Amino acid sequence: MIEVYAFATPNSVKVPIALEEMGLTYELRPVNVRKGEQKSAAFLALNPNGKVPVLVERDGDAAFVLTESAAILVHLAQRSGLLLPADVERRARVFEQLFFHASALSPAFGNAGFFKRSSPEPQPIAEARFSGEAERILDLLEAKLAIQRFAAGDDFTIADIAHFGWLWRRAFPGVTLDTRPNLSRWYDAITARPAVQRAIARVEALVPAA
Amino acid sequence: MIEVYAFATPNSVKVPIALEEMGLTYELRPVNVRKGEQKSAAFLALNPNGKVPVLVERDGDAAFVLTESAAILVHLAQRSGLLLPADVERRARVFEQLFFHASALSPAFGNAGFFKRSSPEPQPIAEARFSGEAERILDLLEAKLAIQRFAAGDDFTIADIAHFGWLWRRAFPGVTLDTRPNLSRWYDAITARPAVQRAIARVEALVPAA
Repeated sequence: MIEVYAFATPNSVKVPIALEEMGLTYELRPVNVRKGEQKSAAFLALNPNGKVPVLVERDGDAAFVLTESAAILVHLAQRSGLLLPADVERRARVFEQLFFHASALSPAFGNAGFFKRSSPEPQPIAEARFSGEAERILDLLEAKLAIQRFAAGDDFTIADIAHFGWLWRRAFPGVTLDTRPNLSRWYDAITARPAVQRAIARVEALVPAA
Repeated sequence: MIEVYAFATPNSVKVPIALEEMGLTYELRPVNVRKGEQKSAAFLALNPNGKVPVLVERDGDAAFVLTESAAILVHLAQRSGLLLPADVERRARVFEQLFFHASALSPAFGNAGFFKRSSPEPQPIAEARFSGEAERILDLLEAKLAIQRFAAGDDFTIADIAHFGWLWRRAFPGVTLDTRPNLSRWYDAITARPAVQRAIARVEALVPAA
């Protein structure tokens, strides 16, 4: 049985999208990050890093616990044989995009949002640094999507799921798809996938009504 | 033939370490990032993201170009069958650490160093945010290395190479191994490996004498 500890966050949504795309059954376990539940002792016992999502595969009394959204995507792709090509060079392109996402897009988006919205005092150099980096990264993706359908080639892969998670939450860093027609086309194509719509509905349902 | 575009940087050194550990022959192509050569038109044609390292595998007129240091490590591990276990759960632990490195350790170290050393004006909230995060991440690694020999288990893997690259350059973010005995033990064990010593000597030789 597969459990996913998650909330309606950019990294959380990636895992249910992958599970829905792969046709795997799972249960969501809500971790309300707005209330800080990811820092509770119970959750830190599961993931000492205090972050969602966490995947738990239970088999009787045994539990395999895995953290890091992109590592979970790779693991599920290897388990299912889906969304990660077997060809050596095409597979390398998927990892290239996954690590570009993890090391560049994700921290730029997260820090741009923090310095724009959450910093206790303005830090103009920091805000400009991360907002500028977020725009630069989107321009790189736009150029890539001008010559191929998806992030890692012409097939939909787990690399698209990774990028989509943060682009779905682009209001936080305050970036837009405007003036980026290829990125817009890519975003619309992913949003139209029934599996993506099911996953988004499920993570949005984790948020209590105000 | 394998070429590696690199300099004596935290991300660059990872690739020659992996190649030396795997017994693969390669040539280094220096990219002097202190002079900004990674932003030259010639280099941007190779990697539009303007970062080292870049791997180029040449076979006659064909060239396979791969960016992102961790994606290069995964690719070389899959080509060689080395430093990435085949067992599903042990392999997942390696990816968990690689993505923890890419999304957490690497941006925290890089940004802590920037705000401590390179920001045109002090940004105290930003400096505290990234320095604190770098310390928190080292504490998480220390706890992990208290119960296992290496980052992803009891075997040396590409995850250790990734973490080592930035820890080798820990003076930039201004963190230390002091008061972290397990991390110190791990660092010393990696530094003692002949392949690691050969790789470090080769990337240090890329830096012109002052």
